[in-house]
Amino acid sequence: MRDGAPAVIVLAPDSFKGSLDARGVCAAMAIGVRRAGDDVEIRSCPMADGGEGTLDAVLSRGGEWHTQHEVTGASGRHRAARYGVVSTTDGPATIIEIAEIVGLTDADGIAVPVGERSTAGIGELLRGRLDAGARRFMLGVGGSSTNDGGAGMLAALGVRFCDAAGEALAPTPAGLQRLASVDATELDGRLAECSLTLLSDVTNPLCGEHGATTIFGPQKGVRADDIAGLDAVLERYASLVERAVGVRAARAPGSGAAGGLGFALQVLGAVSCSGAEVVAELIGLDQALRGATWAITGEGESDVQTLSGKAPLVVARRARATGVPTTLLSGAVRSAALPALAREFAGCFALPAGPMTLDACIADVATLLADRAEQLARLWRAAR
Amino acid sequence: MRDGAPAVIVLAPDSFKGSLDARGVCAAMAIGVRRAGDDVEIRSCPMADGGEGTLDAVLSRGGEWHTQHEVTGASGRHRAARYGVVSTTDGPATIIEIAEIVGLTDADGIAVPVGERSTAGIGELLRGRLDAGARRFMLGVGGSSTNDGGAGMLAALGVRFCDAAGEALAPTPAGLQRLASVDATELDGRLAECSLTLLSDVTNPLCGEHGATTIFGPQKGVRADDIAGLDAVLERYASLVERAVGVRAARAPGSGAAGGLGFALQVLGAVSCSGAEVVAELIGLDQALRGATWAITGEGESDVQTLSGKAPLVVARRARATGVPTTLLSGAVRSAALPALAREFAGCFALPAGPMTLDACIADVATLLADRAEQLARLWRAAR
Repeated sequence: MRDGAPAVIVLAPDSFKGSLDARGVCAAMAIGVRRAGDDVEIRSCPMADGGEGTLDAVLSRGGEWHTQHEVTGASGRHRAARYGVVSTTDGPATIIEIAEIVGLTDADGIAVPVGERSTAGIGELLRGRLDAGARRFMLGVGGSSTNDGGAGMLAALGVRFCDAAGEALAPTPAGLQRLASVDATELDGRLAECSLTLLSDVTNPLCGEHGATTIFGPQKGVRADDIAGLDAVLERYASLVERAVGVRAARAPGSGAAGGLGFALQVLGAVSCSGAEVVAELIGLDQALRGATWAITGEGESDVQTLSGKAPLVVARRARATGVPTTLLSGAVRSAALPALAREFAGCFALPAGPMTLDACIADVATLLADRAEQLARLWRAAR
Repeated sequence: MRDGAPAVIVLAPDSFKGSLDARGVCAAMAIGVRRAGDDVEIRSCPMADGGEGTLDAVLSRGGEWHTQHEVTGASGRHRAARYGVVSTTDGPATIIEIAEIVGLTDADGIAVPVGERSTAGIGELLRGRLDAGARRFMLGVGGSSTNDGGAGMLAALGVRFCDAAGEALAPTPAGLQRLASVDATELDGRLAECSLTLLSDVTNPLCGEHGATTIFGPQKGVRADDIAGLDAVLERYASLVERAVGVRAARAPGSGAAGGLGFALQVLGAVSCSGAEVVAELIGLDQALRGATWAITGEGESDVQTLSGKAPLVVARRARATGVPTTLLSGAVRSAALPALAREFAGCFALPAGPMTLDACIADVATLLADRAEQLARLWRAAR
């Protein structure tokens, strides 16, 4: 190290999905960096992109944790849902991570078929917050198990879905198969006063070959044979909803997020934003980067998708804007993506220290992270 | 990069045994380093430690390749053996890599049982060179398939091994079982005029629990049941040889190298040296490091053994003496050895970019090396 003042190192990784949350990644990286030399100031900025871990990341820098009890999960069973309230320059905002309610990793939610899962709980949470006076919402919409086009949420907010006989239908893919009419006259009027921001890294539309069902349905349990039928159900649903509410959104980028919840939110006036960019703003990443000499980011696996606005790219771009080089340390880095990734990062590195299985990487993730961060820091210090 | 003069980067890896020779490793590393920026001067110094690849490494920096035909291989079949002649400050020296004659990777040699393998070819090559007037020899003794205590070599140089009836015995472990007397009166007198240097990274003695048979026998095919018996044969052989020649060597460090060839060479007056140190001298590593800003070394796998004088450690120590940081880039780095390795290197790194099998690493070694070297160089450049 050249001079007296401690060098400032910013640690701003996303979570390593399936193995370690972003705060855990920061902690492990910090241990390693300090092993290479303790004469540094470490600024830990756990990142997220709107998916699982968004609440954790945003609230790690301030704000209040809250819990709403008796919210309907994807399967219909009640559960508790955490949310956050943070202060922004425009006033307090409610942060909702929909994976808290309809998460793909929730065993209870995925115990029922995807055709019976519903986003009703999202609408219930919004209504509860509206009752409490909240009017600004940010919704991280990654990691959902649902594919209901947001019908459950709309129903919980007053929209009625009926069959040809005028009977109310369940707001689920199964129920919507007999959808004949949508009545939005009872839609909660307070939504018109609201600012809704959709945090997502998904730009897919609701339907079609790049739509929610085709692209994300299979990982939620939609069988290949059922994709076309379910896609048609959502297409018909969307056109009826658009007519009833008077807003078009089915072709908007991000309407395919969270099984079409992105569509329903945009019908309600939500603006779709890069989840990682909004999280970066909320956690004050730019301030943390000010005066820093080096940043390390990372995620579970880096590939070409990383370059379409994932958290590590957002960190690298913002760091570059303040003259700070950013190194990527992910669980794995796809070799095919290296040439493109190399242009964005001051080196791209992965966890294994030799031939190793995925299971071994996951089992040992914190140790491997600390070891790799230490070695990167040793090289970085030697080069300075 | 800060200033105008191109930074000088020294690439000084050992071979990645079983996948790529040291020159290939240098070439792959150079490709990667240049991808990170072409404004550098690269000095490639393939290293070796006295084992396979020693001739390649030494002769890559100058000297002449030669071949002696009709040399006896380990199995008794004739073969051609390459050797080198290099000029040193003390005059020309013959470099012999014994793996060229009795190599463990030679399918023909290991086709016969270890009890019948012999180092006779080493003695034949020495005799041929003595006939040509050579008096200075350096023998890289790593990677042998033999366990004959060097009896074959001594026999080729004039020593007679006899049974109780005075009949000549084959100079092999099997033959020596009936050894009763050793006659060194016909030992080639020209050896007394010679300088012999044994290049090795082995400090084991000839016999006992740390001896050649116990430690290295099994990888050559010595069965567990046969270790004690063979060890006793070599112990008796050694005491008779020592008495006949008038030199004690069985307990000297390195006498257990190459199945006891180290013993026989030391009986002939050879000095045992660190193979990596001698190779570093022969290839002019210190000169290459002069004015350099960074060095990269590596080997197939780095573990605690690396710290007992393997090529990467020798590179790092010499580089440090001239103020050059050295980064380790190996096929794999054992996690348990990291704390100790970290003290010697400016970062320790491995080939995989994610979970990966050993076979996949080996199959793709050159690509992975170039990729990793590129990423290391990107971090190094960003930190400067």
